[in-house]
Amino acid sequence: MSRADRFLRACRREAVDCTPVWMMRQAGRYLPEYRAIREKHTFLEMCRTPAIAAEVTVQPMRRFDLDAAIIFADILLPLPGIGLELSFGEGEGPAIGNPVRTRRDVEALAKFDPEKSVPFLLEAIRLSLRELDGKAPLIGFAGAPFTLASYMIEGGGSRNYENTKALMYSDPQAWRVLMEKLVDTVAAYLSAQVRAGVHALQVFDSWIGCLSKQDYLEFVLPHMKALVSAIGRAVPVIHFANGASHMLPGIRDAGGDVISVDWHIGLDDAWKAIGYDRGIQGNLDPVTLLGPREFIEKRVADVLLRAGGRAGHVFNLGHGLIPSIPPENVGFAVDKVHELSVRTP
Amino acid sequence: MSRADRFLRACRREAVDCTPVWMMRQAGRYLPEYRAIREKHTFLEMCRTPAIAAEVTVQPMRRFDLDAAIIFADILLPLPGIGLELSFGEGEGPAIGNPVRTRRDVEALAKFDPEKSVPFLLEAIRLSLRELDGKAPLIGFAGAPFTLASYMIEGGGSRNYENTKALMYSDPQAWRVLMEKLVDTVAAYLSAQVRAGVHALQVFDSWIGCLSKQDYLEFVLPHMKALVSAIGRAVPVIHFANGASHMLPGIRDAGGDVISVDWHIGLDDAWKAIGYDRGIQGNLDPVTLLGPREFIEKRVADVLLRAGGRAGHVFNLGHGLIPSIPPENVGFAVDKVHELSVRTP
Repeated sequence: MSRADRFLRACRREAVDCTPVWMMRQAGRYLPEYRAIREKHTFLEMCRTPAIAAEVTVQPMRRFDLDAAIIFADILLPLPGIGLELSFGEGEGPAIGNPVRTRRDVEALAKFDPEKSVPFLLEAIRLSLRELDGKAPLIGFAGAPFTLASYMIEGGGSRNYENTKALMYSDPQAWRVLMEKLVDTVAAYLSAQVRAGVHALQVFDSWIGCLSKQDYLEFVLPHMKALVSAIGRAVPVIHFANGASHMLPGIRDAGGDVISVDWHIGLDDAWKAIGYDRGIQGNLDPVTLLGPREFIEKRVADVLLRAGGRAGHVFNLGHGLIPSIPPENVGFAVDKVHELSVRTP
Repeated sequence: MSRADRFLRACRREAVDCTPVWMMRQAGRYLPEYRAIREKHTFLEMCRTPAIAAEVTVQPMRRFDLDAAIIFADILLPLPGIGLELSFGEGEGPAIGNPVRTRRDVEALAKFDPEKSVPFLLEAIRLSLRELDGKAPLIGFAGAPFTLASYMIEGGGSRNYENTKALMYSDPQAWRVLMEKLVDTVAAYLSAQVRAGVHALQVFDSWIGCLSKQDYLEFVLPHMKALVSAIGRAVPVIHFANGASHMLPGIRDAGGDVISVDWHIGLDDAWKAIGYDRGIQGNLDPVTLLGPREFIEKRVADVLLRAGGRAGHVFNLGHGLIPSIPPENVGFAVDKVHELSVRTP
């Protein structure tokens, strides 16, 4: 079985020859060849120049035996298309120049047109597909409505998400309109990526872990359901809910063919909570890859053991690769995943 | 029943007339009278000047009908006493000038002597007790060994705790020695506070939520058990494990008369996971207090409903008060807790 098939078969919970593996932020700063390009361009320039984005997308595929590529982009790329001023300061996180704080700000958001707002991303997808040449599938992605809303409202990263929750608690009607607009935006953004040719989609709800289960069920779950339904069933959808081990059944109810979980609980307990009628992706703590090789091997084996050889497991980290991780440890882990999970036919 | 009794009775799971309440960071920046003092002194000066620390400790007790005071201090105060250079930059978090990174750094740590290193804290406790005059109990506190270790190793706050975990994974022997030294340090620090007169203790494991359940059980739990055992049973011990809803049975096994939980899961589910042979403290999301009054009341009532009138509940937030919270909303919530939880005798 080629790596072109392994990942997509696992997403559909079909039998595979060994467990497929890719890693969040596999196109990123831990790679010297990425840093060499990054030195000459800003982060947004890289995202908005199709040739660069495609090059960075395939970089880790040349080095490692990864079973899927993920398009190089940022979850905030659609925001300028709905009227927000997006910037990335050097060494800082993203910033929104005109944060959304009132019902009026919500109403003023524009309708998103992917062909007009992110043509560079769609072109980067086409270039990446040409470069990958059918040898590995390509994943498209977007931020989930809650995570996008939190950036839009806070104006950047946040510690307590106080403006986001204050809007949610004090003007639930404005919150609902905002989420509905973001569902439309994200659905259009992901559908355009499918039309450009991606083989699977991942929705990143990176900051959802700041919410109580109670708030998730009340303020987010219905909108996530609407999103997953709007995306349709053309390609598998992976739903990554970071910091959400306290509400996995809610995350599952929100939708996704595969639920991607962080490292906080064992993959066995997570899959049990989600139910075996879904695939699961995860869940090695990325910092494991800073440890010695014996330790990495032990922990890779542990994740595979907890997956129990069941169809529907995509090996991944519980969060993105961090810049200090040695690339050779990434390659070591990828090879160990394949080696330790070979199924006898 | 006076507020002098309510809190301590609840810690021992005895009957109370209504649910006692205090709030983490109740002595803090959301209070204008705190900010007035803070403008004239650095944070460390405030901690190290007994008259100021005592004044700030009792400030919220004058405004609100809180059932316990907590001594104004910082979890990092014992660190200079074991050889670390501690500073707080204006507007930044804490910094350690000489972080612990190697086995040699661990071995070089000094033995902690509370009378010599934190006499100001012990004096602040005595002054606060005089000021409180038996009308409300006083809580002493410390950071848990893991949380202290993470600051010591990272040199300050952290996003990924990569140095901490890397030491844990690559040199488990050095990690063990570090945790043992911190258990001794924290036990001595807390015991000195008990001798100075505090009525209860809270151990803050603020950053423990970065660990998987697996890592907690292997690298932290045995040391927490040793700590709780070393503290002894002179006063009730509250164990606050932030971000730990994925491993509450482990937190319970580590010890504490009362387990203090954050807001991620409902108090009913948390208490069930912990077991009813322990008290529980929590668990309103602090950001709730930025919402409108009807919303605050609804959420306070919800926490009380989930506690089910069972003996052993101390009402608190799931994390500390944040500076933007209006003081009048704190008072409103405190009064609602008492009003909505009155037991008919």
